[in-house]
Amino acid sequence: MTELLSDTGRKTMLEPLFKSGWEMVEGRDAIAKTYTFDDFTAAFAFMTRTALWAEKWDHHPEWTNVYKVVQVTLSTHDVGGLSALDAKLARKMDQLAE
Amino acid sequence: MTELLSDTGRKTMLEPLFKSGWEMVEGRDAIAKTYTFDDFTAAFAFMTRTALWAEKWDHHPEWTNVYKVVQVTLSTHDVGGLSALDAKLARKMDQLAE
Repeated sequence: MTELLSDTGRKTMLEPLFKSGWEMVEGRDAIAKTYTFDDFTAAFAFMTRTALWAEKWDHHPEWTNVYKVVQVTLSTHDVGGLSALDAKLARKMDQLAE
Repeated sequence: MTELLSDTGRKTMLEPLFKSGWEMVEGRDAIAKTYTFDDFTAAFAFMTRTALWAEKWDHHPEWTNVYKVVQVTLSTHDVGGLSALDAKLARKMDQLAE
């Protein structure tokens, strides 16, 4: 699972994410998304739920929180770019943010 | 409490924080510190404990987490710079990080 996404993998796994607001990070093989919630408690609740999955999967986001906004960047250090784990965590975060 | 720190306030409240690793942010009336923990769970536990105090005091950090590292910036939006609330939250975070 932790190998760089192939061209086919990128097409099948990343395209749906781009439709839900994820974007490629400039100059880096990574994806990013900004989530905006109603307030800090909602934002941090999302981070907490995400943290449990991140730890369970041993795959952690780079993220910044300012009040009700959470900016997330996903990439896989071990392979120096995007792996299926990033797509999996991105999908999970979208689900948790609903 | 939410007014810009006076010169005296800066001396009494910020000086001790500078000794514990807080620094002024360049080009902004804000303080910042980087905490490094043993792993993600320790870093996120610190964030969770901080979040409860932040919400209780209605004063929230700007923070970035990458695995075991948490970078924090504190400033008071309402007054456009550092207030006693920032010093209070900084001290609490130092305590929670111990």
